[in-house]
Amino acid sequence: MDNINKLARFFLKFPGIGERQAKRFVYFLLNSDPKYTSELIDGIKELKNKVSQCPVCFRFFPKDNNEICDICSASSTDKSVLLVIEKDSDYESVRKSAVYAGNYFILGGLVPITDKSAEEKTRIKQLFERVKKEAGKGTLKEIILAFSLNPHGNHTDTYVRSFLSPLQEKFGLKISSLGRGLSTGTEIEYSDDDTLKNALKNRQ
Amino acid sequence: MDNINKLARFFLKFPGIGERQAKRFVYFLLNSDPKYTSELIDGIKELKNKVSQCPVCFRFFPKDNNEICDICSASSTDKSVLLVIEKDSDYESVRKSAVYAGNYFILGGLVPITDKSAEEKTRIKQLFERVKKEAGKGTLKEIILAFSLNPHGNHTDTYVRSFLSPLQEKFGLKISSLGRGLSTGTEIEYSDDDTLKNALKNRQ
Amino acid sequence: MDNINKLARFFLKFPGIGERQAKRFVYFLLNSDPKYTSELIDGIKELKNKVSQCPVCFRFFPKDNNEICDICSASSTDKSVLLVIEKDSDYESVRKSAVYAGNYFILGGLVPITDKSAEEKTRIKQLFERVKKEAGKGTLKEIILAFSLNPHGNHTDTYVRSFLSPLQEKFGLKISSLGRGLSTGTEIEYSDDDTLKNALKNRQ
Amino acid sequence: MDNINKLARFFLKFPGIGERQAKRFVYFLLNSDPKYTSELIDGIKELKNKVSQCPVCFRFFPKDNNEICDICSASSTDKSVLLVIEKDSDYESVRKSAVYAGNYFILGGLVPITDKSAEEKTRIKQLFERVKKEAGKGTLKEIILAFSLNPHGNHTDTYVRSFLSPLQEKFGLKISSLGRGLSTGTEIEYSDDDTLKNALKNRQ
Repeated sequence: MDNINKLARFFLKFPGIGERQAKRFVYFLLNSDPKYTSELIDGIKELKNKVSQCPVCFRFFPKDNNEICDICSASSTDKSVLLVIEKDSDYESVRKSAVYAGNYFILGGLVPITDKSAEEKTRIKQLFERVKKEAGKGTLKEIILAFSLNPHGNHTDTYVRSFLSPLQEKFGLKISSLGRGLSTGTEIEYSDDDTLKNALKNRQ
Repeated sequence: MDNINKLARFFLKFPGIGERQAKRFVYFLLNSDPKYTSELIDGIKELKNKVSQCPVCFRFFPKDNNEICDICSASSTDKSVLLVIEKDSDYESVRKSAVYAGNYFILGGLVPITDKSAEEKTRIKQLFERVKKEAGKGTLKEIILAFSLNPHGNHTDTYVRSFLSPLQEKFGLKISSLGRGLSTGTEIEYSDDDTLKNALKNRQ
Repeated sequence: MDNINKLARFFLKFPGIGERQAKRFVYFLLNSDPKYTSELIDGIKELKNKVSQCPVCFRFFPKDNNEICDICSASSTDKSVLLVIEKDSDYESVRKSAVYAGNYFILGGLVPITDKSAEEKTRIKQLFERVKKEAGKGTLKEIILAFSLNPHGNHTDTYVRSFLSPLQEKFGLKISSLGRGLSTGTEIEYSDDDTLKNALKNRQ
Repeated sequence: MDNINKLARFFLKFPGIGERQAKRFVYFLLNSDPKYTSELIDGIKELKNKVSQCPVCFRFFPKDNNEICDICSASSTDKSVLLVIEKDSDYESVRKSAVYAGNYFILGGLVPITDKSAEEKTRIKQLFERVKKEAGKGTLKEIILAFSLNPHGNHTDTYVRSFLSPLQEKFGLKISSLGRGLSTGTEIEYSDDDTLKNALKNRQ
């Protein structure tokens, strides 16, 4: 295979990229300034050297000689509450909304409905250990499960609740899930039954 | 104007219909069976004779010698709760979801944000009278406002709450709004700030 | 069935209308001015009285004591060319573009690929008779087939050409089809093979 | 700026990529296998070493010790015709359709309507020189302009025709543009006036 198609095959693995766009990326690089290309390569190279995965929340963060990320180490972080999310992009979204001041935990994936390998595909064990430790010290009081509202997300919610239930009982922890109801733009006329049901049940 | 264009102009007023589709409706009628057309005309004619607007909830319902609609007159309806909605199509949607067993009130429109004519454009006064009467008798305990989650819906929610506040205080009524949070299909990564904020606040 | 649902079932047969919109049409009529409704009924009633189907081109046209439509009877119409189209809406589109000054013939449908009943489902025989007569008189010189560029349209094109071929030979008629190539907005990068092939073949 | 955001800024320049997807690319790389990342870097590095821009047609091609690309050097290429296109992705599209066997020329951009700098932004001068040389030798007979059917493409078509007109006259060259008319999927009813006009004019 020639180098154009070879590189296109690598771009094809990027999230959301199809064959045509992968090829366009290659032509874009061929037409771009050598300075841009070499800085792009440096950026990719440095990424893994300068960015660490926090051993506490599993978020990626700029290293700067720190072992632990800025949120996990900040004294201003509300340590009584832990938001469990699927992935780093979800963290970005919550962070940007500026409505949450507690700790995070990145599960690293959703639990497939028909798959028994949840312990390998997610960080459910690491979550268990972290909750056990922080609840044991008396700092952690509530765990918020924040998964997308689709079958995989719902299954993961059920799975995590069940997995953590021994700790919930032992330490009297609260486990909550994100509220359900109308989201921005929802029209009553076009709402599905589940959304209406949740919106009615959770009225306030 | 010829009869094709004249009838197309009438269809143009149908909700969601543009010029091209209005014209297609006319050609559809021209090509259709005379039996279909005459039954369609009969259906439109009979509509206002055989369908009434309930003087209590303002829903349209099949008359059949009744003054009041089946929901307002049924003894099985939960009279302690009143769902205020914009229009009949919203009623259809809630009814189909089978999650609500109380009374309804069709406001007949949303309150425009910059418009002062809410009392003419909606049935806010009729709602006030109904609430006053039913709360006075001690049957009505809660009013649920169920408007679409957009600026007009939000404004209507605020407006109705304010309009009913004297009754709320006098009778100790509860006024609630549909719950807000994740709706079916919402992905955390692509959620807007408001939805995330509501979902976190309303976690459970 | 009650009258709301009964009328909705009639609207459901309108082209492009689903269950929800059919219901909205009924609520729209229930909420509309009685004058509007009665004029709508009159419009539908008068339609078949005041609109005729031209026995020459099969277009619908405002009657006004004329047997034949304005285009077929106008001396300004170019009688040497006949545009064969599927339906009245196609006529509207061509007429609006103001690029054609000849005669029309509305075939009344496309020929289904796997269906042998083309003579019943379309006006192919009437087209044959008309072409025979007008070519026999020496006025008609060219037939333009103008069907949508999809499998049904292509099949109809082939079928009509074959059906008219005895007349074509006998009278030395030209039978053409609409040109193929790039249409407004086509981007080379995203073109399908057929469009590129036609665009290259028909370059000028 | 931290390394995550820094690299995201580079991906933001990729064609068709917005902020959110740029960030997802970074997280994708952080989560990916080090082998994948290092092969990706190698692929980008090698790209400019192993891929050349053909000095005749300006296409990118795998070098392999050749100065000139495989199409420009192949004896099977029809040298009497030259297809002028905007960019490499257009070439991919035409090549895949397998309907053209002549030479190519990549103009490197479209001529902006209000911009006077066509000679800097496109390879119009190089095109002129090539046409002059090949038409002078008597090999080149026809130039086909193949630009997208939008205002920029149309303007470029006009501009290139005008720029090449001295050569056209001197050597009796044919300059054609891709045919216009119905493209795959076009429905008569929904066609714009220009497409109908071209389809009628170019009927055959």
